[in-house]
Amino acid sequence: MKMIQTPRGTRDFLPETMARRQWLLDRVRSVFERFGFDPLETPAFESWELLSRKGVGGQEIRGEIYYFKDKSERGLGLRFDLTVPLARVVANNPQLILPFRRYQIGRVWRYDRPGPGRYREFWQADADIVGSPSMEADAECIAAAVAALKELGFRDFAVRLNSRKILNGLVEFARVEKEEAFDVFRSLDKLEKIGEKGVLEELEAKGIGKAAIGALLKMIKVNGKPGDVLEREKEKLKGIRIAQEGIAELEKILEKAKAYGIADKITIDFSLVRGLDYYTGPIFEVAAKTRQDVGSVAGGGRYDRLVGLYGGRNLPAVGISLGVERLFEIMEAEGMFKLPQTLTQLFVVAVDDNARGHATRIAGLLREKGINVQADSMGRPMRSQLEYVNRKGIPYALFVGERELKEKKFVLKDMGSGKQDAMDIGSVVVRLRGPI
Amino acid sequence: MKMIQTPRGTRDFLPETMARRQWLLDRVRSVFERFGFDPLETPAFESWELLSRKGVGGQEIRGEIYYFKDKSERGLGLRFDLTVPLARVVANNPQLILPFRRYQIGRVWRYDRPGPGRYREFWQADADIVGSPSMEADAECIAAAVAALKELGFRDFAVRLNSRKILNGLVEFARVEKEEAFDVFRSLDKLEKIGEKGVLEELEAKGIGKAAIGALLKMIKVNGKPGDVLEREKEKLKGIRIAQEGIAELEKILEKAKAYGIADKITIDFSLVRGLDYYTGPIFEVAAKTRQDVGSVAGGGRYDRLVGLYGGRNLPAVGISLGVERLFEIMEAEGMFKLPQTLTQLFVVAVDDNARGHATRIAGLLREKGINVQADSMGRPMRSQLEYVNRKGIPYALFVGERELKEKKFVLKDMGSGKQDAMDIGSVVVRLRGPI
Repeated sequence: MKMIQTPRGTRDFLPETMARRQWLLDRVRSVFERFGFDPLETPAFESWELLSRKGVGGQEIRGEIYYFKDKSERGLGLRFDLTVPLARVVANNPQLILPFRRYQIGRVWRYDRPGPGRYREFWQADADIVGSPSMEADAECIAAAVAALKELGFRDFAVRLNSRKILNGLVEFARVEKEEAFDVFRSLDKLEKIGEKGVLEELEAKGIGKAAIGALLKMIKVNGKPGDVLEREKEKLKGIRIAQEGIAELEKILEKAKAYGIADKITIDFSLVRGLDYYTGPIFEVAAKTRQDVGSVAGGGRYDRLVGLYGGRNLPAVGISLGVERLFEIMEAEGMFKLPQTLTQLFVVAVDDNARGHATRIAGLLREKGINVQADSMGRPMRSQLEYVNRKGIPYALFVGERELKEKKFVLKDMGSGKQDAMDIGSVVVRLRGPI
Repeated sequence: MKMIQTPRGTRDFLPETMARRQWLLDRVRSVFERFGFDPLETPAFESWELLSRKGVGGQEIRGEIYYFKDKSERGLGLRFDLTVPLARVVANNPQLILPFRRYQIGRVWRYDRPGPGRYREFWQADADIVGSPSMEADAECIAAAVAALKELGFRDFAVRLNSRKILNGLVEFARVEKEEAFDVFRSLDKLEKIGEKGVLEELEAKGIGKAAIGALLKMIKVNGKPGDVLEREKEKLKGIRIAQEGIAELEKILEKAKAYGIADKITIDFSLVRGLDYYTGPIFEVAAKTRQDVGSVAGGGRYDRLVGLYGGRNLPAVGISLGVERLFEIMEAEGMFKLPQTLTQLFVVAVDDNARGHATRIAGLLREKGINVQADSMGRPMRSQLEYVNRKGIPYALFVGERELKEKKFVLKDMGSGKQDAMDIGSVVVRLRGPI
């Protein structure tokens, strides 16, 4: 009979992998909670009307999402991010206390061509602050992402910072038409992928003048200490109001970053664009560093007009999104997960059939103490039970037989070292949980 | 501008609700792990070929699920349970060590008419043991469900136990054609809903003889101690091999239930059917008891042929599924959640603008100690910060100003009692976390 696989671009996560993913997501969640974000959950699919609203996905998103209709012919689509649902929630719930600080961890779906590290179903972990116009919120989102990376075991990281306002200012400075700004941003976003020549060709094809493009490409190259860069650009872009606003905002973020202890990790990068249309202010990406530089694992920015798009008040908002798949891949490759093969800590071995009920009972006692325990559920003899313990990588085996029951002392075997000790149940608990 | 709602039958979970749902799911997960189940995750959608396979959903399931096509015109559908994906995973992964004990907690979708407590998107929490033909596995699944209910705070519960084998035996005994067995089961399943008369009419309409139906309806009424019931039925159904097999299996479950300390919670109920076609042996439902009887919150059974349907080895399997929505509703109604309005434990109040950076720094110190902390990200004055703390229901406020910084003593205010104490940061940590 033919095996049926998972749909293209989707995956099963078998227990050993899934335990690691859960570990990762649990850590991220705990950091978000420590930063005072509360959890939110929204449906897996949203109305097509929501997903296709102009300024969000637009009609052209149809080909990039999973689209379907319900029986009443209403269009639906699997969510492609966690930000659009958040904006809807905020618009629909005017009673929410501001700032509304929420995190959401879950799957999103995009109908992309699958490739290495690119899936049609993948997980995101987002934290957003809605309602604050202050740059303190932007700095906090960056700090939360950095704290999450630290919690996961990354030693070093780098933050790239830019602003859509500055990019708009550069466009104005280069005398490109305002209406063409998004086209310019989309091309610039590909700089790393297609190179300067590629960007130049693409923008020329879009009808933008060579001189303007040249000026732009030159302008986005900045380097030096963030404070110095901003000081210089302030001078260069004198008279361009939107750019000055953007620069002043980044200065505030840099100032606040000191209190978070991450100021020295930040560089200004005018070539950072971020694909989505809805950003309005600062944008940022966080890269994790391991032995080599592994690229961006989190990104976000300010989107002050998105909530208003859904009929809510025009609330400012800023957020960060961690790329769970990328993080997971890096942590796997770097051996950063220190997890056993199974979450089960101990197996209670029934020495013979008479001991089976007792093994079950003792397993129950240990579970009540919070220990992850299995006993045999296959009716297997001792030898097969032990073979299972070995193959599954369960760290401890506890032997229960007639003599053990009489003496109330049970042999605990450390399956790794092979070391055995006889002890009572209380001592087993202490050994596995450590002293309280 | 028009507000856009969630699609029909789906819901948002705002933070206060979501924190409770997470609490519930975390507890269930920890119980499953204590029972030695490891986590599994599968895609949200599966191929139509999988979902519609005969013996699972069948073609007729099309109207009951969310069905769509990818660009290559391949049929897909959102998963309607977690058992079918499990069977596929086991079939596709012959390397899995047996028994394969997995839990999976996640959403499933059914295109039902939404109603009170009935949603199109809802959560299930399943634990299954694949590979064991022994009734020890069935007993363990029941015990895990009961342990989960206990962990959630339920004081009492009731287990109803039946067997598809016994039901098949009853059908044989009543001289109904074997091919009509599923029709009979489906009608019997509605007994509580449509009453005896309704079942009778439905079965007559299906062409089953009045005498046979009468015999069946009489046979399924059993009461008394489980052991006695089985003893009696063994006598009555003498010579009907399948029924004898089913009875012997339930006897083994009852025996094993003693070791789990849940034998006195079990009753035999021949009217229990459970809708799904794939069950082959014992079936069971667990009801939670609160002040009133609140009905079934978990159910499951043995399905020895499902894995084989997907081209895998013909592996026996048994599992239990907790109805997360039902559990959540009961726990809400009974006030069983003891959670604050927010997960944030403390807000660091900046007394004036000069203190803002220090407030951020101190918030960071407390977070490193594992405390959930907010500081202002709105640029608001102290008064507005405190108003926010009150409205959000954050339990503690810590005041940071010039004097506090000089003296290294900060006023900690218990927002509930209004009580204030000055202390150093270390003491704040101890107060919020409790002594280690």
